[in-house]
Amino acid sequence: MPVTLVYISVKRDCIDDFITASKANHESSIEEPGNLRFDFMQNEDDPSQFVFYEWYQNDDDITAHKQTTHYKTWAAAVNDMMAERRRGVRHKGLFPEMKS
Amino acid sequence: MPVTLVYISVKRDCIDDFITASKANHESSIEEPGNLRFDFMQNEDDPSQFVFYEWYQNDDDITAHKQTTHYKTWAAAVNDMMAERRRGVRHKGLFPEMKS
Repeated sequence: MPVTLVYISVKRDCIDDFITASKANHESSIEEPGNLRFDFMQNEDDPSQFVFYEWYQNDDDITAHKQTTHYKTWAAAVNDMMAERRRGVRHKGLFPEMKS
Repeated sequence: MPVTLVYISVKRDCIDDFITASKANHESSIEEPGNLRFDFMQNEDDPSQFVFYEWYQNDDDITAHKQTTHYKTWAAAVNDMMAERRRGVRHKGLFPEMKS
């Protein structure tokens, strides 16, 4: 099952707005049927650095996520808040052993 | 609440043994009272690269984790399997909003 760590660097004057927009995206994303994790964290040493931890049942669920209104709303809202292009790193989720 | 991403590079001939040792550590760690997440993933492009995603209620729980038999057993078992020193990056867990 695909697990993606998405690394995002945010402009310093946009941090609060980025968290607000990302909270809304989190709350809707966890309701998607194929979603297993959609956690969101902020670097302790540098609060402008964020990570999304996203676990989906399969790639079709990731494709579906990117077609949702809440994803598109988030992406449009935060696009200009990012200090650089965001970077996603794909993994295989090993444990916990999620049921498909 | 502290969330740590631990990045581990494993020698290529130790990958299977590393997964076996880490599964045991995962299974015991999620039973710790202060643990909220102890997920384990493998890089899709380079299977020698792993990440632990560890969420605890507070720093005392992390200290307690490192004193458990299962952590010490894991650390001793995998020490020589690592290609380089492992690296932990601390975050503040924002969402989901965990209850303390």
